[in-house]
Amino acid sequence: MSKILVLGAGLSSSDLIKYLLDHSKVLGWTVRVGDLSLETARQKVNNHPNGQAIQFDINNNKQLQDEVSWATAVISLLPAFMHPVVAQECVRQGKHMLTASYVSDTMKSLHEEARQKGIALLNELGVDPGIDHMSAMRVIDEIRAKGGKLTGFISNTGGLIAPESDNNPWNYKFTWNPRNVVLAGQGVAQYLENGQYKYTPYHRLFTSVREYNIMDLGMFEMYPNRDSLKYREIYGIEDIQTIIRGTLRRAGYSKAWNVFVQLGMTDDTYKMANSEKLTKREFLNSFLPYHPTETVEEKLKRIIPDAQDEVVFNKLKWLGMFDNEPIGLANASPAQLLQHILEPKLALGPNDKDMIVMQHIFDYELSGKKHRKTSTMVIIGKDTIHTAMSITVGTPLAIATKLLMTGQIKDRGVIVPTKPHLYNPILNELENFGVKFIEEDVELS
Amino acid sequence: MSKILVLGAGLSSSDLIKYLLDHSKVLGWTVRVGDLSLETARQKVNNHPNGQAIQFDINNNKQLQDEVSWATAVISLLPAFMHPVVAQECVRQGKHMLTASYVSDTMKSLHEEARQKGIALLNELGVDPGIDHMSAMRVIDEIRAKGGKLTGFISNTGGLIAPESDNNPWNYKFTWNPRNVVLAGQGVAQYLENGQYKYTPYHRLFTSVREYNIMDLGMFEMYPNRDSLKYREIYGIEDIQTIIRGTLRRAGYSKAWNVFVQLGMTDDTYKMANSEKLTKREFLNSFLPYHPTETVEEKLKRIIPDAQDEVVFNKLKWLGMFDNEPIGLANASPAQLLQHILEPKLALGPNDKDMIVMQHIFDYELSGKKHRKTSTMVIIGKDTIHTAMSITVGTPLAIATKLLMTGQIKDRGVIVPTKPHLYNPILNELENFGVKFIEEDVELS
Repeated sequence: MSKILVLGAGLSSSDLIKYLLDHSKVLGWTVRVGDLSLETARQKVNNHPNGQAIQFDINNNKQLQDEVSWATAVISLLPAFMHPVVAQECVRQGKHMLTASYVSDTMKSLHEEARQKGIALLNELGVDPGIDHMSAMRVIDEIRAKGGKLTGFISNTGGLIAPESDNNPWNYKFTWNPRNVVLAGQGVAQYLENGQYKYTPYHRLFTSVREYNIMDLGMFEMYPNRDSLKYREIYGIEDIQTIIRGTLRRAGYSKAWNVFVQLGMTDDTYKMANSEKLTKREFLNSFLPYHPTETVEEKLKRIIPDAQDEVVFNKLKWLGMFDNEPIGLANASPAQLLQHILEPKLALGPNDKDMIVMQHIFDYELSGKKHRKTSTMVIIGKDTIHTAMSITVGTPLAIATKLLMTGQIKDRGVIVPTKPHLYNPILNELENFGVKFIEEDVELS
Repeated sequence: MSKILVLGAGLSSSDLIKYLLDHSKVLGWTVRVGDLSLETARQKVNNHPNGQAIQFDINNNKQLQDEVSWATAVISLLPAFMHPVVAQECVRQGKHMLTASYVSDTMKSLHEEARQKGIALLNELGVDPGIDHMSAMRVIDEIRAKGGKLTGFISNTGGLIAPESDNNPWNYKFTWNPRNVVLAGQGVAQYLENGQYKYTPYHRLFTSVREYNIMDLGMFEMYPNRDSLKYREIYGIEDIQTIIRGTLRRAGYSKAWNVFVQLGMTDDTYKMANSEKLTKREFLNSFLPYHPTETVEEKLKRIIPDAQDEVVFNKLKWLGMFDNEPIGLANASPAQLLQHILEPKLALGPNDKDMIVMQHIFDYELSGKKHRKTSTMVIIGKDTIHTAMSITVGTPLAIATKLLMTGQIKDRGVIVPTKPHLYNPILNELENFGVKFIEEDVELS
């Protein structure tokens, strides 16, 4: 009789909890779901006989201790910065833990103690990180097994809006944390291309996009993520000549988004004076020079020439950036004000479906010939509960929980799913949920 | 018999120490100069009968305690981040302290205890901050006394090369900490212009310069400093419509410097892979996209169109940016590598003289008429020891020390020289050292 504790019942938890409850009778599980909002937890459990909903507060240390003590394994869907608190308690009490997040330094530091106590700390079991690692490693290992030599690896992922719900000029809606979207790409993008280390600063990131025509979905563009270099070690491909991991957007998004970046509107490091009084137009004007006669529109087109492009200009206009409508956010940074402007305009509607697109491009040499293998996953959400994000984040995490509870994962300590005995059973079962990759392999002339 | 302890005998200490030693006989002072390098301290003391040179290490807490215990007043010329350690010890032992640096939060927190112990913590007594505050406040107070209303205040300062030593295409040499020059302007520039709050992000800072023709020196350009807004409170001019503090460079500098900024070469937040092996040309190429046939020069001109300007291109070429010459700096950030390239090229020669230019522009209304008052200081160094920087940083600090030691400054706690009883005696005596402002007042039509 295993007891599974799920912490956090937010947007991406639906398919995880559904899977666990669906398997609970056969596998003899009790699934307890804790969330700050008891109502949210109850909705997800939906009166399932093996489910329990509780109000859970991560800041209540006594409650954390009690709940971990109750559990056989703990799945944390809390914001990533809260994982260490849970992980430390799990290790202290000798309980397994699973997350869909990157291994943090704190998590890493618990490896030896977790191993000695015979528990697993399984991480990076969502979509990105998660399915990206597993699907890439499967192909990389296949190429190696055939005697091929991998020379290049480009891997792009985007959380987007499904074509049938794609009805705004940005071809984008918030299907994930809006704050992360506004701040995306800050820092420097580091990657390797044809043996050359390349560094793209944030203020040039959205002018350096590459275009991809994916499946029958049309054109996408990609900007590189912050650190692609570290994946050489993670994937065991240290001698590769090209490695780039990127974020996908619909073609045209970056040129318009770059207007915000160039203006300085995505800066989250300071608060703007009188932010509570600013209208959208005044907010825009704050980043343009003073001029006694020029309009805001004229100044924008002069300072950021890309705004002269009618397609770009109309994206800004559609957001109401030139309107004298109050934003209404006190003591706010530019990024917070921008997010506040974007949220109602780019919100997912009640009938909207999201879409996750992931594409790996592998260049390799085999028997003296150059090949390019493309591996592509497109997932469209069922509705606003069972979103593509919830399916792809929650299902691999749930499958890994089952494998761990049924003794099929025997690894202990801090683990990520980059080895065949971990990624194969998860990827295989994911196909039952429509999560599969279409592969294409061409010989390059 | 006062005992004055000077900590740090670096470049900007010469005129401070000279002043103190020159006044030591009449005023009965012993002046002890401590530096990490005993030799450097000895050179500055130059066997003066009232001078003492010691080897001093700020990390030796026992030594700090002993030296502060010996002193009547302590002058810290150490790097600004070290001031708090000295200040805390001074307050603990009830000794006065003076610096040429901005009041830090730690310094501010010592105000009440210092006041109660009857000691003064005098700060911002150099050139910028220092002479800028004093000279601006004198004019602001004069305008107020006449019944005028200040509507605008623009204040620009530059540490530059004297015209007679200005012999490179950048019209610039390092007369001050090169690291600060490379990192200058990072963050966001915040200012107020005609009642509108304006924010300029770093990546647009050097494209937003304003030009000034100053005295008979020709053209300069100014980029705004990080936070001009806070000076409204410091100067007591909360209802002003325009306030901008800026940094002066020779005309043309910013357009070329902006190439480095746009490329991402001034980033100090990460280390570059294989930095020890990079040549200047490879360093440049690291920030340009991969291309199978284009040269570095061609890519630069395509990605950063300003580099097509021959004047800009030649500035880069003069630095050797396109040469396959190794830089030779391991585990270095882009900013560190850039500094390493610039240092030998922009070094002050043995016969070079530096120059400090400061100009305040006051707009005010008096009896229904609009006036513009300009107040300008130009200081040219005597040689590489008695530089304009050393004269203007060290002399006001030395004068303030004399005023404190002779009981003419009676203020206690944390003090900056924005009040007439502080700035008047200092500015008056500074005129004996050639530090004076030329004023011009015109009625605007």
